[in-house]
Amino acid sequence: MPKVRVFVTLKPSLLDTAGRTVAGALHKLGYDELEEARIGKLIELEVKDYDEKRVKEMCDKLLANPVIEDYRLELVK
Amino acid sequence: MPKVRVFVTLKPSLLDTAGRTVAGALHKLGYDELEEARIGKLIELEVKDYDEKRVKEMCDKLLANPVIEDYRLELVK
Repeated sequence: MPKVRVFVTLKPSLLDTAGRTVAGALHKLGYDELEEARIGKLIELEVKDYDEKRVKEMCDKLLANPVIEDYRLELVK
Repeated sequence: MPKVRVFVTLKPSLLDTAGRTVAGALHKLGYDELEEARIGKLIELEVKDYDEKRVKEMCDKLLANPVIEDYRLELVK
């Protein structure tokens, strides 16, 4: 069965507060090489038949917020 | 600067309640081709120099919960 990975990320111009917090915590643990951390979602969908148009519709309607997020699809098999 | 993507997913044997809810909502919207949805995290790290061992340490200590989650690294550039 085809599997699609949807990567949802906050638009680059927006401040990612969760990522900022994670970066701060990693600095406290001594990982000074870290410059930035940004946190997004990975949604794995298993579909009976893959239709890119319909998967994009799912993203626009429910999986991502197009006002503040970008998304990218990757067909696994 | 090297960028690493960390994909954190719930172990396959565990019930993903958030994914189940998303799948239910998509079915109600008429996407009957959807069989399963699972939700994970995508963490993008920008590091001054990439050392796989240290990034794996960050995952084990903070970014993932190794008891219930798996993770995978992808070096972008």
